[in-house]
Amino acid sequence: MDNIKKYITSIYHELKDNNNGKVADYIPELSKVNPNNFGISVCTIKGEIFNIGDYETKFCLQSCSKPLSYLIAYNLLGKNKIHERVGYEPSGQTYNAFILNNKGLPHNPMINAGAIMVAAQINKNEEPSKRFNTIKSFYSKMGGNNIIDFDNSVFLSEKHHADRNVSLAYYMKENNAFGIINPNELMQSLDLYYQQCSATINCEIGSIIASTLCNGGICPTTNEQVVSKNSVIDTLILMYNCGMYEYSGQFAFEIGLPAKSGVSGCILLVVPNMMGICIWSPPLNEQGNSVRGIEFCKKLNEKMNLHMFHNFFNNKD
Amino acid sequence: MDNIKKYITSIYHELKDNNNGKVADYIPELSKVNPNNFGISVCTIKGEIFNIGDYETKFCLQSCSKPLSYLIAYNLLGKNKIHERVGYEPSGQTYNAFILNNKGLPHNPMINAGAIMVAAQINKNEEPSKRFNTIKSFYSKMGGNNIIDFDNSVFLSEKHHADRNVSLAYYMKENNAFGIINPNELMQSLDLYYQQCSATINCEIGSIIASTLCNGGICPTTNEQVVSKNSVIDTLILMYNCGMYEYSGQFAFEIGLPAKSGVSGCILLVVPNMMGICIWSPPLNEQGNSVRGIEFCKKLNEKMNLHMFHNFFNNKD
Amino acid sequence: MDNIKKYITSIYHELKDNNNGKVADYIPELSKVNPNNFGISVCTIKGEIFNIGDYETKFCLQSCSKPLSYLIAYNLLGKNKIHERVGYEPSGQTYNAFILNNKGLPHNPMINAGAIMVAAQINKNEEPSKRFNTIKSFYSKMGGNNIIDFDNSVFLSEKHHADRNVSLAYYMKENNAFGIINPNELMQSLDLYYQQCSATINCEIGSIIASTLCNGGICPTTNEQVVSKNSVIDTLILMYNCGMYEYSGQFAFEIGLPAKSGVSGCILLVVPNMMGICIWSPPLNEQGNSVRGIEFCKKLNEKMNLHMFHNFFNNKD
Amino acid sequence: MDNIKKYITSIYHELKDNNNGKVADYIPELSKVNPNNFGISVCTIKGEIFNIGDYETKFCLQSCSKPLSYLIAYNLLGKNKIHERVGYEPSGQTYNAFILNNKGLPHNPMINAGAIMVAAQINKNEEPSKRFNTIKSFYSKMGGNNIIDFDNSVFLSEKHHADRNVSLAYYMKENNAFGIINPNELMQSLDLYYQQCSATINCEIGSIIASTLCNGGICPTTNEQVVSKNSVIDTLILMYNCGMYEYSGQFAFEIGLPAKSGVSGCILLVVPNMMGICIWSPPLNEQGNSVRGIEFCKKLNEKMNLHMFHNFFNNKD
Repeated sequence: MDNIKKYITSIYHELKDNNNGKVADYIPELSKVNPNNFGISVCTIKGEIFNIGDYETKFCLQSCSKPLSYLIAYNLLGKNKIHERVGYEPSGQTYNAFILNNKGLPHNPMINAGAIMVAAQINKNEEPSKRFNTIKSFYSKMGGNNIIDFDNSVFLSEKHHADRNVSLAYYMKENNAFGIINPNELMQSLDLYYQQCSATINCEIGSIIASTLCNGGICPTTNEQVVSKNSVIDTLILMYNCGMYEYSGQFAFEIGLPAKSGVSGCILLVVPNMMGICIWSPPLNEQGNSVRGIEFCKKLNEKMNLHMFHNFFNNKD
Repeated sequence: MDNIKKYITSIYHELKDNNNGKVADYIPELSKVNPNNFGISVCTIKGEIFNIGDYETKFCLQSCSKPLSYLIAYNLLGKNKIHERVGYEPSGQTYNAFILNNKGLPHNPMINAGAIMVAAQINKNEEPSKRFNTIKSFYSKMGGNNIIDFDNSVFLSEKHHADRNVSLAYYMKENNAFGIINPNELMQSLDLYYQQCSATINCEIGSIIASTLCNGGICPTTNEQVVSKNSVIDTLILMYNCGMYEYSGQFAFEIGLPAKSGVSGCILLVVPNMMGICIWSPPLNEQGNSVRGIEFCKKLNEKMNLHMFHNFFNNKD
Repeated sequence: MDNIKKYITSIYHELKDNNNGKVADYIPELSKVNPNNFGISVCTIKGEIFNIGDYETKFCLQSCSKPLSYLIAYNLLGKNKIHERVGYEPSGQTYNAFILNNKGLPHNPMINAGAIMVAAQINKNEEPSKRFNTIKSFYSKMGGNNIIDFDNSVFLSEKHHADRNVSLAYYMKENNAFGIINPNELMQSLDLYYQQCSATINCEIGSIIASTLCNGGICPTTNEQVVSKNSVIDTLILMYNCGMYEYSGQFAFEIGLPAKSGVSGCILLVVPNMMGICIWSPPLNEQGNSVRGIEFCKKLNEKMNLHMFHNFFNNKD
Repeated sequence: MDNIKKYITSIYHELKDNNNGKVADYIPELSKVNPNNFGISVCTIKGEIFNIGDYETKFCLQSCSKPLSYLIAYNLLGKNKIHERVGYEPSGQTYNAFILNNKGLPHNPMINAGAIMVAAQINKNEEPSKRFNTIKSFYSKMGGNNIIDFDNSVFLSEKHHADRNVSLAYYMKENNAFGIINPNELMQSLDLYYQQCSATINCEIGSIIASTLCNGGICPTTNEQVVSKNSVIDTLILMYNCGMYEYSGQFAFEIGLPAKSGVSGCILLVVPNMMGICIWSPPLNEQGNSVRGIEFCKKLNEKMNLHMFHNFFNNKD
C-alpha cells in the first residue's frame, strides 16, 4: 500500500495543472461544476483506503451507473434472462446511435439503448419508488454501506433534455425489444434510467464500489457478498470491451484493465486481485472521457505495470 | 500434458458427428473442401505437440493470416508507424463493411479493410515476390520452420471474386488512408493480401504458430524470437477484441481467450502461459466461425477453466 | 365526359378480377377491410361527377391526408414559414426512415416525419379539438362541403401502434426541428397527425378534393376558393415528386401526373385542366400503393394520353 | 425572339458582377478555369440562336453528359434493356454515395454510379475508340453537327483522381449490376465515362443540344431526328426529377423545368415548346450548381413565367 500511495500522490501532483478538456454541457446542470475538482481514491481488496484531492465532493454517476445496474439486473433476473433483451458486442457507433443488433436488441449494456433496457428490467412490475430504492440499496452495499445521494437538479435536467433517449426507447419498443411494455411503463423506465445517472457518490465510495468488483462481488469494507462472482466477471468483461466509449479499443491497448467512465468526469478502474480506483475530474476529451482520468490510468500503468495482457506473460517469469 | 491429451481426445470424439454448419462458398474453390475434415493440434510453450484427426491436411489461412501479417508489419515498421494507417477499435459492422473511422482509416487490422492496409505496408517498395517471401518466411518461423505452402487455385479464385475488396481499397485510397500509392501498387497490395489468405498450413503448424503467440514471440520448437513480445501482446489484445467476427464480444464472454478464425474453418486459440491450439473443421456457422471449432473452445473451457477473466479471480485463491 | 365515362367503365371491369396485392396490416384495424372493395370517382373541373363501384363506402385518408394538411399549413402560415420546418427534396428512403436533411429537417411533407411536422404547425397554440376542426373543415371544403367522418377505431389503433412515429418525433425534437415544443404539445401534434390519417372520405368526396387541386384551389362543385392557387401548385409539385412512396420516380416515368396514395388503398390523381380522380381498392403492392389503383392509372394513360411530359410535345402539334 | 433577347441581355448584365461561389477543385485541372467566364446561348425550336458573353469559349460537359449518354444508350439498346441496369428513382443521397436500390442497381442515370452504368452499356463489345466515337458523334448531331472537342488534361486528371468512381464501379460489379463484365472491360467503361465528362462544347453548342431535347429529338438547326421522341421525354423526366444534384426538388419548386448541371459550371435548361438554353459560369454553390446559372433560371422564370406547373393552370385561362 505504501508504494501505491507514493505513486498516486506523485501522479496526482503531476496532473493537477493539466487544464485540458471541457466540462460536459449537453445538459445545463452538468456544466455548472467546477472544472478544478480533482480527486482520487483507492480501495484495496483488503479494504484499505487511500484518498487524495477532492475525494469527498459528491458527483453524479452518469454512465458509471451502467455496469452497476447491469449487475443488479443480472443478479435479480439471471444471466440468460437479461441477455434475452441486450447483446454482448461492441456497437462500433457512438453511445447514443440509432442502431440495434440483428436480433433487434441494443448491442450491449454500456451504451444508452442497452442501459435503458437494463433499467427497464429491474423490478419492472413494482412502483417507481421501490424500483429506485432497489438500485440505491445495491449501489450502497457495493459502496460499503455508504449513503448514495441524489442530485434532483441533474435528474430534472436529464429528463428535460432526453429527446434522444425517448426516441431510442420508442425505436426499441417498435422492434419489440422490451417485450410487452406500455408507454407509461416505458416512461417510468426512462425515469429510472435518468435517476440512476443522477445518483451521487464521491471518490471514496467509488473506490469501494470498484474494489467490490475487483473482489468478486464481496465488498472489501463490509465483507458482504453483494452480487455473485459470475455476474462480476461478466460485468468486467463488458467494461473491458465497451467501458470507455469510442476509446475502449485503444484503452484495452494502452491500459488493459476493465474500466467505466461517465460524463461527470468519473472513471471506475478495476485492478485484478489488487484494488479498485475512482478518479474524478470533470473536464472531458472528445471521446467523453475525463482528461486527467485517462492520463492517470496511463501513468499508473507505466509505474506499476498493471496491463492484463502484459501480466499474462510476466506471470510466467 | 496428459490431462490435455485426455480432454482433447474426448472432445474430439464428442464433436466428430456434429455435422452442423455450411462450408464457405463465396469463392468456388473454398466450397470444394470435404466438410468431414476435422483436426486439432496443441503445442505447449515447452514445444510439446499433440495431434488428433486430420491434422496433416493443408488448408488456407484465410483470415487467420490477419493477426500474423499485422505482427510482421508491426515488427518491420514499429507500432506507431503501422497505427498511423489502421485503428484499434471494433467496427461494430460486418468484416467487409464500407466504413472507416473518424480519421478516415480502417477500424482495426482484423477486418478486411484493415488487413488490406496492413498488407500494403509490408515491404511496400519491394517487388511482389520479395514481399510475399517476407510474409512466407515470417509465417514459417512462427510455425517452427515448417514449410508454408500456397494454394494457387484459391488465390486465383480470391482474385477473381474480389470486387468488394477492390472497392474497399479504392474507398480507402480516396480517403488517403494509404498515403501515397498508385493504382499499380494498390493492386499489388491487394494481390499480396489474397496471397497471404491463400497460404496453407496444417493443424500442427497452426498450433506452433499459436504457441509462438502464447510464448511472447519465441517459437517453442525452435526457440527463435521471431517477433517482439510487445508486438505479440498487442496482437493478442486485437484478437481478443475483434478476432471472431461479429461473435467476438460473445466469445469474450464465453471463452475469454485471444483467438482468430478464418472462413477455411480454422481457429487459432491462445491459452496464456500454457499452449497454442489450432482447430480445423470447414463447416461454418452464420457468423463465419467453424461450428466444431466454437464448440471445441466451449467444451475445453468447461473442462479446464481457461477464461482470462475467470482466472483473474481464481489466481487469488 | 362521355369518353371519360366509357374509358373508366371499361377499365373498371378489366380490373375487377385482379386480386393481386395484400391489404395493409401494420395496424390491426386496417386489416379488417374487405379486399374486394373497388370504387372510382371522377370530378371534372366543371363539377361533373361520374362514379362506379363502391364509391360510397367510407375509408381512411391515411397518407392521402399529407398533401391536404400541407395545403392547410401553407395557407395558414405561408410558404416561407412552413418551409422553415420541412424541406423539398425526395428522401430516397422509406417513408418512415430515421433521416433528416442537412438542416436537421424532415426531407419533405410527404414522408411521415414531414407530415408530423406539418401537422404540428397547424393552429399550434390552440386546443386539440379546435386544431382537428380546422383540418376537418378544410378537408370538407375541398370536398364540396361533404361531411368528413372519422374512424375512431383506426385512430386508436394508429395511436397504439405508433412507436416509430413517436421515435421519429423525438428524433426531430432532439434536432430542434420543431422550434420550441414541450412533450405534451408534441404528443398532441402526433395525435392530430393520427387523427388526420383516420379522417374518412369516400371516392366521390376524394374526386372532388382532387378536382379542387386540379382547379387551382377552387372547389368545382361549390366554386369556393378554398386554398390559394400558389399553394396548390406547390402541393402538386410535391405530389409529382414524392407522392407515390418509393415508386414516385417510376410513376413520373409511366404516368407523369401528380398523385398521392395511402395505405388504405386510396389514390388521388390530378389531371391538369381536366379532372380529379379518386380510386379506392385496398390490396397493396410491395411499395404500399393500391394494385388496382396503379393499374388504373396506367390503363387510363394508355387510353387518354395524359402524361404531362408527353403532352408537352403534343401540344406543339 | 426579341423579348427573349431583351430579357436575357438584361439578366446577363444583372448577374455579371455576382462573384459568389467557388470554382470546382476536386480535380486540379478544373480549378484552373477563369471564374469570370460567363456565357449564355439560346436556341429556339425554329433554330434561331442568340448568344451573349463568353459563348464561344469551350468547357467540359462533366455531368451534363449524363442525360446525353443516357439518350444514346436508350436509342441503341431500347428503354427496357437500359433500365434492366439502372433505376428511375431519386437516391436522396449525394451524387457519389455508396448506395444501390433494392434490386442492387444504381438509383438513376443522373448520379455517378448510374452514369457509369449507362456508359458501360454503350457499344460494350466494341473497341474503345469506336465507343468514344459513337458518343462524340451523337453529341455532335444533337449539337447541330458542330465539333465536339476533348480536353485531354481534364480526362487525365479525372482518371487520376477517380478513386471513388472505381470504388463505386467495383461495388456495382460485386452486386452483379453490370451483368458479365471483366476488370478490363470495367476499366474501359470507366475511361469512357471520364471521356464523356471531358468532351467540350461551348454555350452555343449547348443551347442547340438543349433545343434538340426541347424539340423531341429533332435538331432544330439541321432538322435531323437524332434520337427518338420517347427517349427524349424520358430523359426530360429524369432531368426534371434528378438533374440538379441535391437541389433538384427545390429547383422543381422554384423553376419547374427540366435541367442538368455540371461541375464545370454549365447548365442545360429546356423550356417546353420554345427553346433550349445553355448557361456557363464556373463558380458553384454548395450543391455544385453554377451560382450565376441558378440565378439566371430564377430571373428568367420571373420575367417569362415558364414553370411547367404554373403554366398548367395558366393555359386554362
